[in-house]
Amino acid sequence: MERLLLHEYSASGNCYKVRLTAALLGLPLERREYDILNGETRTPEFLANVNANGRIPVLQVGDRFIAESNAACYFLADGSALVPQDRFARAEMLHWMFWEQYNHEPNIATLRFWISFMGEDKLSEAQRAQLDGKRAAGEAALKLMDAHLATRPFLVGERPSLADIALYAYTHVAEGGGFRLAEYPGVGAWLDRVRAQPGYVPIGA
Amino acid sequence: MERLLLHEYSASGNCYKVRLTAALLGLPLERREYDILNGETRTPEFLANVNANGRIPVLQVGDRFIAESNAACYFLADGSALVPQDRFARAEMLHWMFWEQYNHEPNIATLRFWISFMGEDKLSEAQRAQLDGKRAAGEAALKLMDAHLATRPFLVGERPSLADIALYAYTHVAEGGGFRLAEYPGVGAWLDRVRAQPGYVPIGA
Repeated sequence: MERLLLHEYSASGNCYKVRLTAALLGLPLERREYDILNGETRTPEFLANVNANGRIPVLQVGDRFIAESNAACYFLADGSALVPQDRFARAEMLHWMFWEQYNHEPNIATLRFWISFMGEDKLSEAQRAQLDGKRAAGEAALKLMDAHLATRPFLVGERPSLADIALYAYTHVAEGGGFRLAEYPGVGAWLDRVRAQPGYVPIGA
Repeated sequence: MERLLLHEYSASGNCYKVRLTAALLGLPLERREYDILNGETRTPEFLANVNANGRIPVLQVGDRFIAESNAACYFLADGSALVPQDRFARAEMLHWMFWEQYNHEPNIATLRFWISFMGEDKLSEAQRAQLDGKRAAGEAALKLMDAHLATRPFLVGERPSLADIALYAYTHVAEGGGFRLAEYPGVGAWLDRVRAQPGYVPIGA
């Protein structure tokens, strides 16, 4: 494969997804860090050359770029055992990945960022008005995962897929957003199963 | 293919994506309508049997279910010309589909729903506090698409893919959310190219 370079902010769960996918697949990945709190992904150079959307992660493949964490993971894992070969199972995996970006990340990751990275005293009025809604929606997301995982080892089928990587990233650090993982034992056992995968790397590595 | 049944609220752009994908592929699709404004997707029966997340669309394939619009589209189109065969192009397509759910739908579709379906006078205080942010983010999304489409016929490569279907759905009705499509000529020409595809069906069909 061509040279792989991850443009990232390493504490971001979205960036960690790409690193974890590469690690589980044994793919070498170079890394370049950006300080998102100081606007380093909104510079004219970044917008023109890396991602017009001004966000990380972006996976650079040779001289081409793929933004959106779950798309970058899909690129790395396409054709591997992390993407089910069965058509229905592959769609189920994508279902969890889209659900993650719509129902999980905007609540759990955003509260983690607001509380643990920005600080509650720095929130705007519009952000403050969303705290209760995001708390309830994040709890609903964890409850839904917990019920699903109560009877299954992984989100889709009998072995890990990109769905597990996409959802592990912000679930395992959800306490940084004020969520209590002890209330979701099915999720807790699943987190342990993901952590036990050969090649696993922690978010701080 | 097994019997395909779409559980839907037909005015939803997310449901329309699935119908448009099926139409472009010539796949027969049965439909069952739910009144989301009256909670028909939050009944115990719906949550237990169709989608624990309480949302439409859900594509039923025989006796199995796929939620999340873009995953349902992927299931229908997997292996067809609507999914690029090239690995990088396939990831680029998924990039647009994840971007749609994170940057486009929560702004453009949500404002359309709030303004044209609920009515501004019915909004909660928390919703009202988000109006300006969603307006700005929706305009930024349309601007980004417009710049990208100024030099390309479709979002990825030379022919339509699921990325175009996913983004057509709420872009072509964005004026229902108060956006002005005339300000985005690249988007307007692309909307016409999507509409010209053989098998195209409008959202109201």
